[in-house]
Amino acid sequence: MTTATAPANTDLHAHCRGIAERARHAAIDLAGISGDRKAACLRAAAARIRADVEEILAANRLDVAAAPGYGLSAAAIDRLLLDPKRVEGIAAGVEAVATLPDPVGEVIEESARPNGLVVKKVRVPLGVVFFVYESRPNVTADAAAVALAAGNAIILRGGKEAAHSSRRIVESMRAAIAEQGLPADCVQLVDTADREAVGEFLRMDDLIDIAIPRGGEALIRRVCAEARMPVMKHFSGNCHVYVDQAADLAMAEQVTVNAKCQRMGVCNAAESLLVHRAVAGKFLPPIATALAQHGVEIVGDEATRRLVPTAGAATAADWATEYLGPKISVAVVDSLDAAIDHVNRHGSRHTDAIITADPAAAERFAARVDTAVVMVNASTRFNDGGELGLGAEIGISTDKLHARGPCGTKELTTYKYVVTGSGQVRS
Amino acid sequence: MTTATAPANTDLHAHCRGIAERARHAAIDLAGISGDRKAACLRAAAARIRADVEEILAANRLDVAAAPGYGLSAAAIDRLLLDPKRVEGIAAGVEAVATLPDPVGEVIEESARPNGLVVKKVRVPLGVVFFVYESRPNVTADAAAVALAAGNAIILRGGKEAAHSSRRIVESMRAAIAEQGLPADCVQLVDTADREAVGEFLRMDDLIDIAIPRGGEALIRRVCAEARMPVMKHFSGNCHVYVDQAADLAMAEQVTVNAKCQRMGVCNAAESLLVHRAVAGKFLPPIATALAQHGVEIVGDEATRRLVPTAGAATAADWATEYLGPKISVAVVDSLDAAIDHVNRHGSRHTDAIITADPAAAERFAARVDTAVVMVNASTRFNDGGELGLGAEIGISTDKLHARGPCGTKELTTYKYVVTGSGQVRS
Repeated sequence: MTTATAPANTDLHAHCRGIAERARHAAIDLAGISGDRKAACLRAAAARIRADVEEILAANRLDVAAAPGYGLSAAAIDRLLLDPKRVEGIAAGVEAVATLPDPVGEVIEESARPNGLVVKKVRVPLGVVFFVYESRPNVTADAAAVALAAGNAIILRGGKEAAHSSRRIVESMRAAIAEQGLPADCVQLVDTADREAVGEFLRMDDLIDIAIPRGGEALIRRVCAEARMPVMKHFSGNCHVYVDQAADLAMAEQVTVNAKCQRMGVCNAAESLLVHRAVAGKFLPPIATALAQHGVEIVGDEATRRLVPTAGAATAADWATEYLGPKISVAVVDSLDAAIDHVNRHGSRHTDAIITADPAAAERFAARVDTAVVMVNASTRFNDGGELGLGAEIGISTDKLHARGPCGTKELTTYKYVVTGSGQVRS
Repeated sequence: MTTATAPANTDLHAHCRGIAERARHAAIDLAGISGDRKAACLRAAAARIRADVEEILAANRLDVAAAPGYGLSAAAIDRLLLDPKRVEGIAAGVEAVATLPDPVGEVIEESARPNGLVVKKVRVPLGVVFFVYESRPNVTADAAAVALAAGNAIILRGGKEAAHSSRRIVESMRAAIAEQGLPADCVQLVDTADREAVGEFLRMDDLIDIAIPRGGEALIRRVCAEARMPVMKHFSGNCHVYVDQAADLAMAEQVTVNAKCQRMGVCNAAESLLVHRAVAGKFLPPIATALAQHGVEIVGDEATRRLVPTAGAATAADWATEYLGPKISVAVVDSLDAAIDHVNRHGSRHTDAIITADPAAAERFAARVDTAVVMVNASTRFNDGGELGLGAEIGISTDKLHARGPCGTKELTTYKYVVTGSGQVRS
């Protein structure tokens, strides 16, 4: 296989530098490739993954066999495990990215200046993406596909738990890319277990344009602390549901239960419920019962505990906590503005919802809550690239600059100005 | 006056924190203000600057009197000096920003999902901007106007050389903002000479959304090293002019002389000239003469020195040097791709020009050169917010994420998703 392999025992720096330099060259070639050719390449990669299913499953068996040694739980091993249906899912995911419109080359703005200069703002790839992740084998294929579709070269650094599976999937994708006449080095997997390799790449701001960590908070903090290039962060989702005084309370109950309980371990699950004082007496007792039926523990402020005697006392830390499990913090607020203030103070700029029949309240909440995705009368669980119509995503940004919320192909692009004249000089 | 004043001798941290907290509150209020009201506010600020001309000139006299003590050159003192005409220029600049379209509230994308959710991607202000600059008093007014027009609160930290002038200008602007019923704290000047104040603000990533340094490289490096929030960098402009084999050589000479000589101390001046070997014999001797007439020293590679015997030898460092003065590095290249490779290797992603009559060469150069602004048959000097039609600018970004090239009001915004439903839950 042609994926870069680790040196026996020599210079890690030179090894990583070589990967990044090959990525940079591939990225410059890729910047001028048409959308049709990139799509053909992704379809070929999907076909190759399908054709290589036995090899991929064999590689996966090595990961699964090693998993107990890494201390993986049964649930984690199940997420790691591939079968023919899951490999088909990986191939189908890559194929789906091929159907997305090519963001590259879009003329975002165009104007003619009085002196005759034609000014175009053109969408271009970011360049080289360094993606560090702790996740299932399908993320390897998804991330490579999204990066390639946006004209970027990607350096993949996955978790050791899926190392064999990821390597075999990347091998299939690189073979397909090369067959299609594109540079295979636009998808490279870092093939050394040395944790120092991550630090090496994070220092190469001359070759790498963006670092994207996806995983636990410790990983993200490490990448932020060490990276010399910009980082697209997917921090915690301390998501709120605010039930306004003008809420349809049946809708509020349905949305709250869905936001909290439909899948508890994910970033767009609700972690905190705010209820307007005017409806707290009517809303809190039944929602507490409904949440209890899903095994959800409630911690609340004093007003909540008066209405829900089973609720524990929320500490200051609770308001900022992403439980990722069967627990929710609940506060009664005196006004819409108090709810907005609570979210801006304690939230994580991920997803926050208002339930209200009052359009003015919805508008004020949407304008003043500083969050990537504001949901009006809908579950926080819809903050997702697929659900919002972006297709595949490489992550959900909680940053405010460059890209916010789900990040798909367009979010892996930037722009340049191309100014065309006929010899104009400045006077 | 109401601008925050420094504490006598107490807690710098608390003082800075107070400024940032007031900015954050002002920013949340400002996010919902209409474009008309922001424009009215800017017009009022311009009127107030005009009305306060005597007070502004008196403050400026204090700065000018102190300038020799700071070691300022005569040229620097001239740039610092205000007179009635220059104050009118400052007012007119603020008024000009009021005529720009309001970027905030623009619906960038909108779609309806199959489940009935309406997904809008809406342009919103960034929030709180921390602007650290070493510059003339007019930059204070320009930056405040651009930030306000984009709905942001700004914390201004100017150089001590213009401290009195900047303080008096900000006082006029704040008075006008308050008269118009907007929060005056959307424009605050850090009114302490303590250099540690900059470090305090750079640590407040919970309150400040972006740091923008504008000044020398040492300032920018310090801000990048200390900032916990994203930094919009305006690094060096090592700008290239590449004269292709298909260039109109008369045009190439005119553009090269303009790019290098029209104003030598600015970031969009050319610092390096690349010439295709096929036209080097014909182009280099006369351009060397033309540059010499402007007092420009040439350092070149071997091929250049054979054609221009007066040229010195370029060292490896010369290719990466922004001279900001009467010196240029010159290299002869074997091909268009060699020119592209040279620019990508040594350039600073600011502005790079190609002179060619061959559209395919122009297209390849534009696609493959990794730079904010590609000029085709035009001077590098046109990379400027005014010249490219953005109106005022707060700086020119050499970053690739979020914003590239000139940064005006739109570049001080981000977006949020506002998703409106009727009780949808995820299944």
